[in-house]
Amino acid sequence: MTASALVAERAAMVSAAIDGAFDTLLAVPDDARAALYDAMRHAAIGGGKRLRPLLVRAACDLFNISPDSALRAGLAVECIHVYSLVHDDLPAMDDDDMRRGKPTVHKAFDEAAAILAGDCLQSFAFGILADEQTHPDPFVRVELVKALALASGAAGMAGGQAMDLAAENSRFDLATVTRLQSLKTGALIGFCVDAAAIMARIPPEGRTGLHGYARDIGLAFQIADDLIDVEGDAAAAGKALGKDAAAGKETFVSLLGAERAREQALLLVDQAKAHLHGFDARADLLRAIADYIVERDR
Amino acid sequence: MTASALVAERAAMVSAAIDGAFDTLLAVPDDARAALYDAMRHAAIGGGKRLRPLLVRAACDLFNISPDSALRAGLAVECIHVYSLVHDDLPAMDDDDMRRGKPTVHKAFDEAAAILAGDCLQSFAFGILADEQTHPDPFVRVELVKALALASGAAGMAGGQAMDLAAENSRFDLATVTRLQSLKTGALIGFCVDAAAIMARIPPEGRTGLHGYARDIGLAFQIADDLIDVEGDAAAAGKALGKDAAAGKETFVSLLGAERAREQALLLVDQAKAHLHGFDARADLLRAIADYIVERDR
Repeated sequence: MTASALVAERAAMVSAAIDGAFDTLLAVPDDARAALYDAMRHAAIGGGKRLRPLLVRAACDLFNISPDSALRAGLAVECIHVYSLVHDDLPAMDDDDMRRGKPTVHKAFDEAAAILAGDCLQSFAFGILADEQTHPDPFVRVELVKALALASGAAGMAGGQAMDLAAENSRFDLATVTRLQSLKTGALIGFCVDAAAIMARIPPEGRTGLHGYARDIGLAFQIADDLIDVEGDAAAAGKALGKDAAAGKETFVSLLGAERAREQALLLVDQAKAHLHGFDARADLLRAIADYIVERDR
Repeated sequence: MTASALVAERAAMVSAAIDGAFDTLLAVPDDARAALYDAMRHAAIGGGKRLRPLLVRAACDLFNISPDSALRAGLAVECIHVYSLVHDDLPAMDDDDMRRGKPTVHKAFDEAAAILAGDCLQSFAFGILADEQTHPDPFVRVELVKALALASGAAGMAGGQAMDLAAENSRFDLATVTRLQSLKTGALIGFCVDAAAIMARIPPEGRTGLHGYARDIGLAFQIADDLIDVEGDAAAAGKALGKDAAAGKETFVSLLGAERAREQALLLVDQAKAHLHGFDARADLLRAIADYIVERDR
């Protein structure tokens, strides 16, 4: 099986499982909270590549972690990812009308629903990780919570988003853009592989290869995203493009040029795969995901 | 010592400790996230009665829980409370300009900062609970996370806020307002006493008295809040008043009238204290807090 066929097959399985899990988690209650749940369902179900849950699943392949545990850790990280999209799309933030080919939550509902839906998805993420269904060992569960709080909060994703907002009024250099993106997208991607290592009880000093892999594919992913923003097709992307340049933000593409940025992404993918040299065929899905990340913009 | 003097003394100690803990937690980093941290500090430091951390401390008195553990659990619940105020004050929600006698976060900074500051405070709450400093037993920590996720999310505080927004377009009856408030303010107050029981490893069946106490003071607190909204002084409250009536929302006061609402609050306080009959002088602070809750509007 080719790398892209492997990714496609496993991504379809993971997507179906995540949609099913969201459908259960977000069953609409028969009271005045119905609109809140409808807003969460609109944001969470039936869209997106589910790259993060796929990464959790792929990293879990290395350690024979149960599919149920991998799915629940993936569901938690997807809750965080979806909440961040809902909040980032708000008029006060990136002001986007379309996401995954559908109206954004504040367009389909209203801003209050979007704020609350995001808030609730964040609390679901931690509730999922803390539940026995995710893993029988409470130490593992609490380590997952700690890692996700760090990766998603001010020291991770949300901190990166704050830097991104500041970027509109600054001239960031390559080092600062790299730091921004390592927080904004890299931290949560790092959590995905870390979750597998935590569930496998691999001590932190045994995770350097996986962390290197995550850091490299995180940056490659962001470069690919920047290339899509410049060269891509809005209909295929399911969202508005060309926004970084319009906002005067420096990106990998504005700083390096498209050609060097693309070369850099390919280099990062090779480097990411080199970090997996200690693993055998169990790392094939992780390797295929690294290739997929830079191919998706073609 | 009188009940109100006891509350005042302990509240001052808890407030100072919470301010100090926020000062450390929210140390401003030397990068483009500085404005995010400034916004969180503006929201979190130097204001509020710190009722929830005080309740955690009072409930911990019953079980000889260490002051450090009580403080950290109180800090986590205060992170959630503060994030909810920051988001509820946004123009799309309650649209408030003043809070605790200061401009709200979106007025002092901007809406994007307020959204992100709230998001980050929520993730800090779970990160604090998951950390070893809160309690040495990982099972206790993960149970705290689970309880706070439930109390603060769609099944608790945020779900109650969603019902509250729906209340502007509905005619809620007393049962629905009671349910709304048991989620919006009651769930987090319930967490405060539950946190102590979890840290003391009291099984759920041994917590009925504490849960009854929390339920009753939660409703009494909300009735007192509704009375302040109608009869109170905006300068003393540090926020705009009379908003429920202006929004056409039913409250305990609109449904019962001020006199019966006040009687009901006093009845709830007596009932709350009756739930503590099994405890000796160790429950004196909890009893004093119950009295304080209905006295604060006078």
